[in-house]
Amino acid sequence: MSIMFNPIGFVENTSDSVPRHWTVSDIEGFLTIKSEYREGLADLQVGQRIVVLFHFHQSPPFDRTHIKQAKRGTGEIKGVFSICSPIRPNGIGLSVLQILSIEESRIRVKGLDMLDGTPILDIKPHMD
Amino acid sequence: MSIMFNPIGFVENTSDSVPRHWTVSDIEGFLTIKSEYREGLADLQVGQRIVVLFHFHQSPPFDRTHIKQAKRGTGEIKGVFSICSPIRPNGIGLSVLQILSIEESRIRVKGLDMLDGTPILDIKPHMD
Repeated sequence: MSIMFNPIGFVENTSDSVPRHWTVSDIEGFLTIKSEYREGLADLQVGQRIVVLFHFHQSPPFDRTHIKQAKRGTGEIKGVFSICSPIRPNGIGLSVLQILSIEESRIRVKGLDMLDGTPILDIKPHMD
Repeated sequence: MSIMFNPIGFVENTSDSVPRHWTVSDIEGFLTIKSEYREGLADLQVGQRIVVLFHFHQSPPFDRTHIKQAKRGTGEIKGVFSICSPIRPNGIGLSVLQILSIEESRIRVKGLDMLDGTPILDIKPHMD
């Protein structure tokens, strides 16, 4: 049983380095959404925090050796579902980003921890 | 460019009704994870809140008419990326659930807003 998704857009990130996690990132860049989805961006507000789901498109395939991994930062060995590793059974990443501005279907955001070219799967309002 | 995922497990929910959102749910049920991923559950703790990504497997296909939708509860018309509608370009849902207990690869959780049989795509630690 496979489930298939198509990107709604891509990340533009021109910074040289990418932090290990959005919680420690103040990097700015863009979410460039396909024009067919532009109207779906209505009601997003500058200053708002959004949940961005994306594909870890540069990660190696997940295999048995990745079921437990060293946590970045601490090096502790943890079950994959207790950490935010980009190598996971389904390579879906989640970042909470702040909207700085919106121009047509290009959203300027702060807090990027995704590589340039990362496929975006979804945007949702952030709930505390 | 399609991206393919396979469920890591399925939701068991025996309650008669499903609330519109995890933020207003106190329904208990199970996340039954495939045995091959059991070791990946190591380090999840009772009482902890987890982010669960899942597939809106019962939703109709997304088309142009869904780019703006009535928000459940208020009825306001909103862009799809500003609401949590199950009808979205990529049908990925996100719920934050509390772990009540873990037995082998079956996690008892509170806060369910997913239908019985919902395919689970990922579990991540919740970050505030």
